Amino acid sequence: VNEFALIGRHFQRAPRSAAVRVGIGDDGAVISPVPGAEWVVSVDMLVEGRHFFAGTDARRLGHKTLAVNLSDLAAMGAAPRFALLAGALPDADDEWLAAFMQGFRALADRFGVELIGGDTTRGPRNLCVTIVGELPAGTALTRGGAQSGDDVYVSGVLGDAALALAMLQGRTSLAPDAASVAQLRLEAPVPRVTLGVALRGVATAALDLSDGLTGDLGHLLTDSGVGAVIDVGVIPCSPALAGKLAGDERALALACLLAGGDDYELCFTAAPALRERIAAIAASLQIPLTRIGGVGPGAGLTVRDEGGTPISLLPAAFDHFA
Amino acid sequence: VNEFALIGRHFQRAPRSAAVRVGIGDDGAVISPVPGAEWVVSVDMLVEGRHFFAGTDARRLGHKTLAVNLSDLAAMGAAPRFALLAGALPDADDEWLAAFMQGFRALADRFGVELIGGDTTRGPRNLCVTIVGELPAGTALTRGGAQSGDDVYVSGVLGDAALALAMLQGRTSLAPDAASVAQLRLEAPVPRVTLGVALRGVATAALDLSDGLTGDLGHLLTDSGVGAVIDVGVIPCSPALAGKLAGDERALALACLLAGGDDYELCFTAAPALRERIAAIAASLQIPLTRIGGVGPGAGLTVRDEGGTPISLLPAAFDHFA
Repeated sequence: VNEFALIGRHFQRAPRSAAVRVGIGDDGAVISPVPGAEWVVSVDMLVEGRHFFAGTDARRLGHKTLAVNLSDLAAMGAAPRFALLAGALPDADDEWLAAFMQGFRALADRFGVELIGGDTTRGPRNLCVTIVGELPAGTALTRGGAQSGDDVYVSGVLGDAALALAMLQGRTSLAPDAASVAQLRLEAPVPRVTLGVALRGVATAALDLSDGLTGDLGHLLTDSGVGAVIDVGVIPCSPALAGKLAGDERALALACLLAGGDDYELCFTAAPALRERIAAIAASLQIPLTRIGGVGPGAGLTVRDEGGTPISLLPAAFDHFA
Repeated sequence: VNEFALIGRHFQRAPRSAAVRVGIGDDGAVISPVPGAEWVVSVDMLVEGRHFFAGTDARRLGHKTLAVNLSDLAAMGAAPRFALLAGALPDADDEWLAAFMQGFRALADRFGVELIGGDTTRGPRNLCVTIVGELPAGTALTRGGAQSGDDVYVSGVLGDAALALAMLQGRTSLAPDAASVAQLRLEAPVPRVTLGVALRGVATAALDLSDGLTGDLGHLLTDSGVGAVIDVGVIPCSPALAGKLAGDERALALACLLAGGDDYELCFTAAPALRERIAAIAASLQIPLTRIGGVGPGAGLTVRDEGGTPISLLPAAFDHFA
């Protein structure tokens, strides 16, 4: 199979958006900005054996590869526009690539993402997506705006992706239904794109939880120059994880909840005056938004257990080079 | 070594350009377009063992990783602005990364490229750069504009990168001086950034020669719906390659010249009325520009040998999946 044929079959489509002056198939794509808008750009690389297991369902992997990038845009409050996909594949497996692109395309179409560039090569399986989003100038949600007195929120439930990983690694077991739910969270996360856009002008700071709550929230606090206190007892989690948290596997469950990566929920801060507005956003988007603590003037993150006692040794955050 | 420490040390710098509202260190970079400009975006992935040998000098590899992307911008006529670098590394080798970033930075600084995003992970060595360039709206050089009657040009000399590769693979030998020159062409190509910008409004079509002259020019002709005739006798090459072309190693030399990848010279078409203007560009930029043939109304590419006879079987173009 010829590389160009592969690219042509799976990547190339006529440009759909007027903003794309030149699409896939030239040396670069040409995109035209909307007046008054800014672009948000981010890149994420997924490596087989590190971010996903060899043999992971190709369609789900295509979904996840784009999802983790959309999650970055969501964390900035940007609306997704364009993606570029570079991939190294161990062989020219047409069936695998077709399934991968099916998953990728389905998510792209749902959120209006246009694929404008690509590169394929042979090599150990590695997928690298660059995502481009758009927002009105000056409205980006950064990590640096949290204020003392703000509430701390998370979307959805946390820890299931890490729980699924622990299960797949044989470190814990789950009932069939809970296993399916958790594995879907790991392999097919839903990026909080609509939430990110809705939080413009509402959140003072935001990021997505890709490396675990305590580590990621720690970055937000550092960048904002503030501290925070959060309570384990109110961090939303699945019934399966809640069960383990209350039982023999508490250490593992706590690690999943506080330091589990791959959840791709949003964590954000907002002024207490906006609690009703945030509840309205949660209701309208049908995404649970839970207040898990508050920002204070100090530095660092304090995590209190269900009894209100600070946990002295927090589980380590996910680190690619650890 | 912690991933975030690695990123911080080698990637992070305060944003330099006013166009960068948020730089490295958040979920995404925020960039602000200049009114009337369009962005050109491209991605290229380099895999160890495929695009470069294991053990390649890290500084040169950092240079080349950016250079191949700048070459794509040059082929579109865009001025480089921003880069995002994602890399998988087999280990947290701080010395290697420092050298790599030295090479990357030196080239970035020369052409005014600001690094606005990054991702590092552990895995088989793989470097993926996304490049963002800028040009006045509507001035992009595409592959689709060549007209019957146009001249066909290439910049610089062709084939030395492939010749160096053949030497490193033990398929040919070179005298020490020629070996150094060729190896530099392979490992530290100079992207034709200034030439690309100068060709706006001059070239009717352009691309960069990453996969070999005949294959790449073939894409340009297909996209433009025209044919072309070029002459081997006038394709510029180094004295070392010229010597082999006239001797026992003609087949290898011809393959390097016509189908050798990695030269990163530009190939472009332009109206004959602009010959003087193109000569002036060559003189002012001190980049050789050679007319190697002409565009005709037919389809496909005819390559004539030194005696004017069409070569019936052209060397195969570089194909990652071959």
